[in-house]
Amino acid sequence: MEKKPVKIVTIGGGSSYTPELMEGFIKRYEELPIREIWLVDIEAGKEKLEIVGAMAQRMWDASPYDVKVHLTLDRRQALKDADFVTTQFRVGLLNARIKDERIPFSYGMLGQETNGAGGIFKAFRTIPIILDIVKDMKELCPNAWLVNFTNPSGMVTEAVVRYGKWDKVIGLCNVPVGAMMKEPEMLGVKLEDLTYQFAGLNHFHWHKVSDKNGNDVTAQIIDKMYSNDSGIPANIHDVPFIREQLEQMNLIPCGYHRYYYLQEEMLKHGIEEFNGVGTRGQQVKQTEAELFELYKDPNLNYKPEQLTKRGGTHYSDAACETILSIYADKKAHIVVSTKNNGAVPDLPADCVVEVSAYISGKGALPIAFGPLEPAQRGWLQLMKNMELCVCEAAVTGDYGLALQAFILNPQIPGGATAKRVLDELLIAHKKHLPQFAEKIAELEKNGVTVKDEVAANLD
Amino acid sequence: MEKKPVKIVTIGGGSSYTPELMEGFIKRYEELPIREIWLVDIEAGKEKLEIVGAMAQRMWDASPYDVKVHLTLDRRQALKDADFVTTQFRVGLLNARIKDERIPFSYGMLGQETNGAGGIFKAFRTIPIILDIVKDMKELCPNAWLVNFTNPSGMVTEAVVRYGKWDKVIGLCNVPVGAMMKEPEMLGVKLEDLTYQFAGLNHFHWHKVSDKNGNDVTAQIIDKMYSNDSGIPANIHDVPFIREQLEQMNLIPCGYHRYYYLQEEMLKHGIEEFNGVGTRGQQVKQTEAELFELYKDPNLNYKPEQLTKRGGTHYSDAACETILSIYADKKAHIVVSTKNNGAVPDLPADCVVEVSAYISGKGALPIAFGPLEPAQRGWLQLMKNMELCVCEAAVTGDYGLALQAFILNPQIPGGATAKRVLDELLIAHKKHLPQFAEKIAELEKNGVTVKDEVAANLD
Amino acid sequence: MEKKPVKIVTIGGGSSYTPELMEGFIKRYEELPIREIWLVDIEAGKEKLEIVGAMAQRMWDASPYDVKVHLTLDRRQALKDADFVTTQFRVGLLNARIKDERIPFSYGMLGQETNGAGGIFKAFRTIPIILDIVKDMKELCPNAWLVNFTNPSGMVTEAVVRYGKWDKVIGLCNVPVGAMMKEPEMLGVKLEDLTYQFAGLNHFHWHKVSDKNGNDVTAQIIDKMYSNDSGIPANIHDVPFIREQLEQMNLIPCGYHRYYYLQEEMLKHGIEEFNGVGTRGQQVKQTEAELFELYKDPNLNYKPEQLTKRGGTHYSDAACETILSIYADKKAHIVVSTKNNGAVPDLPADCVVEVSAYISGKGALPIAFGPLEPAQRGWLQLMKNMELCVCEAAVTGDYGLALQAFILNPQIPGGATAKRVLDELLIAHKKHLPQFAEKIAELEKNGVTVKDEVAANLD
Amino acid sequence: MEKKPVKIVTIGGGSSYTPELMEGFIKRYEELPIREIWLVDIEAGKEKLEIVGAMAQRMWDASPYDVKVHLTLDRRQALKDADFVTTQFRVGLLNARIKDERIPFSYGMLGQETNGAGGIFKAFRTIPIILDIVKDMKELCPNAWLVNFTNPSGMVTEAVVRYGKWDKVIGLCNVPVGAMMKEPEMLGVKLEDLTYQFAGLNHFHWHKVSDKNGNDVTAQIIDKMYSNDSGIPANIHDVPFIREQLEQMNLIPCGYHRYYYLQEEMLKHGIEEFNGVGTRGQQVKQTEAELFELYKDPNLNYKPEQLTKRGGTHYSDAACETILSIYADKKAHIVVSTKNNGAVPDLPADCVVEVSAYISGKGALPIAFGPLEPAQRGWLQLMKNMELCVCEAAVTGDYGLALQAFILNPQIPGGATAKRVLDELLIAHKKHLPQFAEKIAELEKNGVTVKDEVAANLD
Repeated sequence: MEKKPVKIVTIGGGSSYTPELMEGFIKRYEELPIREIWLVDIEAGKEKLEIVGAMAQRMWDASPYDVKVHLTLDRRQALKDADFVTTQFRVGLLNARIKDERIPFSYGMLGQETNGAGGIFKAFRTIPIILDIVKDMKELCPNAWLVNFTNPSGMVTEAVVRYGKWDKVIGLCNVPVGAMMKEPEMLGVKLEDLTYQFAGLNHFHWHKVSDKNGNDVTAQIIDKMYSNDSGIPANIHDVPFIREQLEQMNLIPCGYHRYYYLQEEMLKHGIEEFNGVGTRGQQVKQTEAELFELYKDPNLNYKPEQLTKRGGTHYSDAACETILSIYADKKAHIVVSTKNNGAVPDLPADCVVEVSAYISGKGALPIAFGPLEPAQRGWLQLMKNMELCVCEAAVTGDYGLALQAFILNPQIPGGATAKRVLDELLIAHKKHLPQFAEKIAELEKNGVTVKDEVAANLD
Repeated sequence: MEKKPVKIVTIGGGSSYTPELMEGFIKRYEELPIREIWLVDIEAGKEKLEIVGAMAQRMWDASPYDVKVHLTLDRRQALKDADFVTTQFRVGLLNARIKDERIPFSYGMLGQETNGAGGIFKAFRTIPIILDIVKDMKELCPNAWLVNFTNPSGMVTEAVVRYGKWDKVIGLCNVPVGAMMKEPEMLGVKLEDLTYQFAGLNHFHWHKVSDKNGNDVTAQIIDKMYSNDSGIPANIHDVPFIREQLEQMNLIPCGYHRYYYLQEEMLKHGIEEFNGVGTRGQQVKQTEAELFELYKDPNLNYKPEQLTKRGGTHYSDAACETILSIYADKKAHIVVSTKNNGAVPDLPADCVVEVSAYISGKGALPIAFGPLEPAQRGWLQLMKNMELCVCEAAVTGDYGLALQAFILNPQIPGGATAKRVLDELLIAHKKHLPQFAEKIAELEKNGVTVKDEVAANLD
Repeated sequence: MEKKPVKIVTIGGGSSYTPELMEGFIKRYEELPIREIWLVDIEAGKEKLEIVGAMAQRMWDASPYDVKVHLTLDRRQALKDADFVTTQFRVGLLNARIKDERIPFSYGMLGQETNGAGGIFKAFRTIPIILDIVKDMKELCPNAWLVNFTNPSGMVTEAVVRYGKWDKVIGLCNVPVGAMMKEPEMLGVKLEDLTYQFAGLNHFHWHKVSDKNGNDVTAQIIDKMYSNDSGIPANIHDVPFIREQLEQMNLIPCGYHRYYYLQEEMLKHGIEEFNGVGTRGQQVKQTEAELFELYKDPNLNYKPEQLTKRGGTHYSDAACETILSIYADKKAHIVVSTKNNGAVPDLPADCVVEVSAYISGKGALPIAFGPLEPAQRGWLQLMKNMELCVCEAAVTGDYGLALQAFILNPQIPGGATAKRVLDELLIAHKKHLPQFAEKIAELEKNGVTVKDEVAANLD
Repeated sequence: MEKKPVKIVTIGGGSSYTPELMEGFIKRYEELPIREIWLVDIEAGKEKLEIVGAMAQRMWDASPYDVKVHLTLDRRQALKDADFVTTQFRVGLLNARIKDERIPFSYGMLGQETNGAGGIFKAFRTIPIILDIVKDMKELCPNAWLVNFTNPSGMVTEAVVRYGKWDKVIGLCNVPVGAMMKEPEMLGVKLEDLTYQFAGLNHFHWHKVSDKNGNDVTAQIIDKMYSNDSGIPANIHDVPFIREQLEQMNLIPCGYHRYYYLQEEMLKHGIEEFNGVGTRGQQVKQTEAELFELYKDPNLNYKPEQLTKRGGTHYSDAACETILSIYADKKAHIVVSTKNNGAVPDLPADCVVEVSAYISGKGALPIAFGPLEPAQRGWLQLMKNMELCVCEAAVTGDYGLALQAFILNPQIPGGATAKRVLDELLIAHKKHLPQFAEKIAELEKNGVTVKDEVAANLD
């Protein structure tokens, strides 16, 4: 049977990740024959789109394959008859992230950009846009799959399923990939010698591992974690978990669990960065600027080594593997955000979870993980409900619910400062939060302004 | 890495299925190196054990592999250091099955031997024995896997998990195998071109199918079922489901659903057989006698064609594939009875379901199927609760609960006859039901006897 | 505080039950001051409305209270500003019930008119009308309470909540009242000396009873049931439950459980009546004719003794008590159909159950009963899912789903006859089933007609 | 019927609350005829027992009733044939509470003594003792009811049900009583004019209120809370909730929710007290000393006014009312900790919740509250799982689980300090934590000592 060639559309195509995505597609071209690639961005991202687009085309030109990379600011033109739509856009660009981080830190509070106060605002900015994209897809490419790696990936996927009523979506994260690269190495075995079972939420999952004989080797990995490097993503401060806690659960938490299990240390470190080298977003902005300088080089036609420093590496590779596995019904094991369907029985069957799944032509077939023990279940149920509040507030613009999400979020101590940070973030992101316009106007009338000077002066 | 050779123990080794099992192992020997095979049976089955054991050894001798088939009546000797224990014993032999069938039919009631009145009694006889086997395994081969294909396979597996507290068990059934052989053929494709998702209980599951592009092709198969032969197991009377029902559910029920969805027709047919050629058990008894005649032939060293007529064919092949998939961590897709863990969210996470799973070194990784629609959910929840009553009554000997299971069972109309059939079955199976001894004595004192002459006169 | 006088509207006001309702209101007038009563009926019921309406007015005139009974065929006029709307209408009158019963019985199948094949069709006829009434209420009396005692009361209430999105509804049934009258008498105590806890569905509930010291006396009542009369409603054939079953569950089933627990006996009895004195509906028709003759007597100004023979007695009294308890926030213990909210945790929190509740100004406060044992849970989950199929089919006119409900219903053996009975009932009730019009036309085109001559010749 | 006179046993009888308890019994004597009262305490509490015991006897002597108050250190003697056992003991006395508070605060962390770090340790000390009491009750007074008001009342009740396997228990709390006293007053109505529905956990519940007409008046009360005093228990710092949050939920949280919703403010206030007047426990110790001075007065024969300052007032009155309601099957509405049974469907049916219930001769009949919205559900599920970890760790002495409970507790930021505080509390309470003996020895070996000087120097 001749393989049907594939049209890929990447929204947020001007992202610095795009070269990794291209590399992933080139690597898989024999199995996944690509007809055309469309990189879509918005006016504000036009320059970056052109730089990275040219670079992307050079990469294909250097490959044995004849693939055209189209660049456009017209999303609807690109979406027409797409087979796969990947989303990696960042509403408000890195400056928005910097505000997400700096405003909380200016009040001595974690500004975590995926599940903390910052992440809540990233969701508020992103969800209305992703729902627009879904609306366009229903019209222009109703058979396409949406492969999202815009953060907060779990909440964005939840919104697509719950409010967009679109089930052909898979949310991705590079964190599980990282664990599955490091841990086999720690044990001196290959990935294919291990069986991984992940369960939880995006940036909030646990996993257990067994070997080919069915023996649970989680405890062995935990043991190695206290001798070795622990496979923490580049964007997470590297402080070891409390060993007794991991031994008790006999599960491996993800790096982002540090924001909860080691809140004290993460907060201290974040404040140091805030007062010193700048928040992670500020550092990334610098890295990105350097990357784009590299990308401008008309001789560069491969993914430069420096991209791995960026954090978020492997995201794009996970995306290519997911697309291939759907396309070729490969049933590859990938950890994805998808509708629960009972796989994590401590959460409702209709919500989105992040879980080990076999990826088939019909999408994710999640593996039933079974109930978690109370300690993990408590965290999990808390976080999912927090996510549900965020998604609903993102859609409705309900200020009270946004406040509830803030207070419920374990990174944010309840009280007047929580409300103040919420209010400042609303003001700071005014341009990207039409759903909260009325409340923002009221806050402005009451004289609320952004305290942190850096954040206040970003565009 | 050198492969560790495997010790297989088959309890009920004198079964007519054993040659199929041997064939399955021989076929897989390169991947699954067998060290020794032990066929275990009881005194009453000694002659059959010797016949089939000799035949089994001939099959291996005709193969390129040097494997010794040990025959024993000493279960504990056999279990020592086993790697896999398969169970295919039949407490009370085929005569017990004939009673299971004839006593209900003598009152004009379905005597279905796996989930109906007969099946309940098969569970009552089997569960205490399987729990004994588990007890032995804990002592003699604590690392072994139990692969059960004694019916009622689902309830037996449930009892092993719930009352035996033994999780290293997989329950098997040949019904899904049959569907996965017939249906691709109906569509003119290969099995590997389709994705199957089964969910439900043993002999009470539904499935849906999609193609490599992710399109649901269930409706196409349903369509074909009304032109073609429908892949019904040899032991189920072949009457077509009501088309509107299948179209409404857009799922394919299993053949045994006929006892519920087409109860009227199945009852009519069963009564005709009861009054005519004899119940299915009586027919099988004849087939078995013929098979054992064949097996006696010292020149026969391959599985004879006639075995497929027996019903239950593929069971043994499923067992070999399951064992291989555990041994080699193959992650093969097999439909198995295993702990739910949320895969079928309409049932408790801790009960046993029959579901599509990937079979790994650590056993079944069940695929989360998601909630069923009310019509299927109603049946499913009814049947699981019926199973739970049966398992508990099998362990406790609680007569009231046995009666409740009978009345709850949709094959058995509530009322005085239900109780009468229950009482006669207790009397008829007295020898194999020590847990109900007190009640049976009381019934005997009250003069209860078996009405059906055939059943009454079987040993 | 002066009590606000109340406007009562009774839809189906021409029912023979109306005098009991009047008696109930008169008895409670000091606590529940009634301003006006509107009896509403349709053109076909006009004569009965006038007879019973005149009788109702005579009852009030003979009381010390000055209450006007308005008679109308204009439902909307009546509903304007109502405080309580009671519904006791019967779409298609008793002739429809007779078809509901006779068509199944003509095929040797139970024609139970509330939860069996007949009840399913009563739901199909009633649910569209009740949803119309709810629509009118939203417009004309948005603060009113709907107190339904049209059967099948549970499914009708479910439809009001689920599809009508109307929570101010209480469904009533006289069966619990009967138990709570008989059983204290059996024990030689007063009702107030006992604590009753009911849980389940309409015509499908169980209860347990304890005394003032907290001792469970359920077993004592069961014991008495085998010496005494068992408090079976007049419309249920009086055959004792199997004692061992009740002792095992240590719960008291409702009379309608006979259609399941004693299906054999109920079917036999029903067929005898079908072939002899006529089905229950035919008997009731006779009783009703006699009642209306009595009601015509211009001197009769009290509820005649004969009404109690009717079956369904106490329904109206339960309605008056419910209305009073809402009006006066009495927190009386009444068994009602209401949204579950967890009271019966084996069913979803958002479905309607029948359960012990304290009735307050804001409606039912259901008592959490806790999980049922598997035997009861199996029945309960089956029946609720059957109800959900019926409600959805009643709203959508989905024939396949109607068929599924039939086959799922334990009173109806699956198979060709089930489908035939379904088809004949559709034909027979054509006039009242606009939602199924297309399918009915198809059936008629295919020559389906009603086999039973009596049913075929009813208007 | 003659009323059966009642034997009351109060464990922790030397508590300063005892006079309130006596007052409650005297007030209810006509309905609840008391035969004898036994006040039990331990050697360390002997002096207080004698003072308060003499005072208790004086109160009865001043009443018209002839009741003897027995004082004993022999719990088993007292328990013999008891009808009601109330528990109000405090393992380690107030000094233990002071450690519970001061050690966390010495690290800048909330030391909340019921649900925070302190409360966890109170559970660790109390649960083994209450399980001993239950063991004695099974032997000496198997028909008695246990009415617990030792804090953390919810976790203690959970342990009694889950690990003690004793269902005849009711956990009490004075917080709901306070709300039901203040709020009607705010609205200018009487308590009986309102319907209260509470749901959640001990010191972690929400409630809604409706009037006699069924109108929800929760919003009105919230409105009043921002003009009036808000009915906060004396032991909680009085800072108003964020109005938008309460309006969004349309529920009234309990005072203890401040430790979560207003964590910032509560922490600041707690640290001020820690550094200034002393923690709440230190203040209470002073109040208690004063109370005992008063109690010594041989002329005092009534509950002195000063007791209300103590915090925890109404606890005893709630206990008397609960006992009366069980004794007389009164079905009074009381908010209690009891087995969920579905009343709070967001939590498992078998765990303990705090919920509105009608109290009958058979204990609590909880009202089904229905599902909570995500924001509340997230908190609730988190806290219940935290409680389950605490209860299990209290029984098993599992250090890892204690650490997990600490990190899961929202009052305790995860990290090294959490572990340090845990370790110091273990050391400080060594005498009362035999289940953790091994770990404590290890900590001591490693030189862990208590940093806070006050705590370190308490006995």
